Amino acid sequence: MHAMSSAVESAPRSPGRPRSTRADEAIIEAVLDLLAEGSTIESLSIEAIAAKAGVGKATIYRRWSGKQALLVDALRRLKGKPPTPKGESVRDDLVLLMRGVGRNADPRASKIMPCLVPEVHRSPEQWAVYQEIVQPRRELTREVLRRGVRTGELRADLDVELAVVMLTGPLLTQRVLQRQPYVDDEALPERVVDALLAGMTPR
Amino acid sequence: MHAMSSAVESAPRSPGRPRSTRADEAIIEAVLDLLAEGSTIESLSIEAIAAKAGVGKATIYRRWSGKQALLVDALRRLKGKPPTPKGESVRDDLVLLMRGVGRNADPRASKIMPCLVPEVHRSPEQWAVYQEIVQPRRELTREVLRRGVRTGELRADLDVELAVVMLTGPLLTQRVLQRQPYVDDEALPERVVDALLAGMTPR
Repeated sequence: MHAMSSAVESAPRSPGRPRSTRADEAIIEAVLDLLAEGSTIESLSIEAIAAKAGVGKATIYRRWSGKQALLVDALRRLKGKPPTPKGESVRDDLVLLMRGVGRNADPRASKIMPCLVPEVHRSPEQWAVYQEIVQPRRELTREVLRRGVRTGELRADLDVELAVVMLTGPLLTQRVLQRQPYVDDEALPERVVDALLAGMTPR
Repeated sequence: MHAMSSAVESAPRSPGRPRSTRADEAIIEAVLDLLAEGSTIESLSIEAIAAKAGVGKATIYRRWSGKQALLVDALRRLKGKPPTPKGESVRDDLVLLMRGVGRNADPRASKIMPCLVPEVHRSPEQWAVYQEIVQPRRELTREVLRRGVRTGELRADLDVELAVVMLTGPLLTQRVLQRQPYVDDEALPERVVDALLAGMTPR
C-alpha cells in the first residue's frame, strides 16, 4: 500500500493545475467508489478514502480542507461540466440546459444519486455540499429565463424560480425517480420545454 | 409472542371486510415499521414480518397470496386514499389531485419512499408493486386531462401523458427530492397547475 502510495504521489504535476495529479484522481475515484458501494456521506471517512486510494491521509489534507470540500469536487466530477448557452434562442438554450438534468457523465451516479439526495437533508454541511453541486446549473437556467423576460421571448410576469422547478422537475422524476420515461428519453428535454412554453390551455 | 399472536388473531372480524382485523393491522404496521427501519423490499421476509407483528406466518399467508400483495396493501396504506375530483373545473380538479403528489398520510413515508423508488427497478415484481400504487392516482389525473380536452378547457392537441409528467414532476422533486420548496408548500400545487395551464410565452 505504501509503495503504491509513493508511486501515485510522485506522479508529475503540471504547476498550474495542482489538482490534476494522479493522486487527486485516485482520491476522487476512491470517494466515488465508496459512495457507489453504499457508503453514506456521514459514514465516509478520510481514513477509508485514503486506504481505497492508496495514499496517506496527509496527502488528502494537503489538497482539500476536509471531507466536505473533497465531496463537492467528487460529486461535481460525477456530474460533469455544465454546457454553455449560445445566447441566441431562449428555447434552444433551455433545451440544451435541460439535456443535462438528471444526467451524469459517470455511470456510478445511478447508484450514488438516488439515495444521496435524501441524505443531504440530514445536516447543514451535507445540504451545503448538495447546493454547491446544484446551484451553478440552476443559476445558468435562471439567467436564460431572465434573458427571455427581457427579450420578450417569455412573459413579463414569469416566476423565474417556479419556472426552474417546472423545467427540471419533470426531467428529474423521469430520469432519476421513475426511470420509465414516457417518451424516448432523447426527445424528453425538448418536449418538456415546448410544453411549458406553450401552456396547456388553447391559444 | 404466541400469546400475543393468539390475542391478535382472535380479534373480531366483520364478514364483509375481512382485512380490517387487528391481525391485518398488525401485519401492515410491521411491514411499514420494517421498511422505515431500513429494510429493503428485497430483504423483507415473511418471517421477519410475522415476528414483528406477533403473528404466525400462516396468518399472513391466509390473508395475502405473498409478499408482493402484502407490500401493495402496506404501501397503499402509507399513501392514503386518493381524492375524488368534483368534475366542475379541470383546473380545480388538477389542483386537488396535485395536492396529494409526494404527500403521504403516514409519517414513515419520508423514510421509506426516497430509497424505495430506486429499489423498484431491481426486478419486474418490485416494479409491479410500485405501479399498483402509482397508477390509480395517475389514471385519475389522466381522466381529468382528457375531460379538459373534450370540454375545450385544455388544448385539443394536448399530450396527456406528458402533461401528467409535467404536473407531478415539479411537485415530486420539491416534496420528495429537494424538500426545500421554493414557495410555501401549501400554495405549490396551485402555482404549478396555473403555470402549466398558462405557459411561459406571452399571450
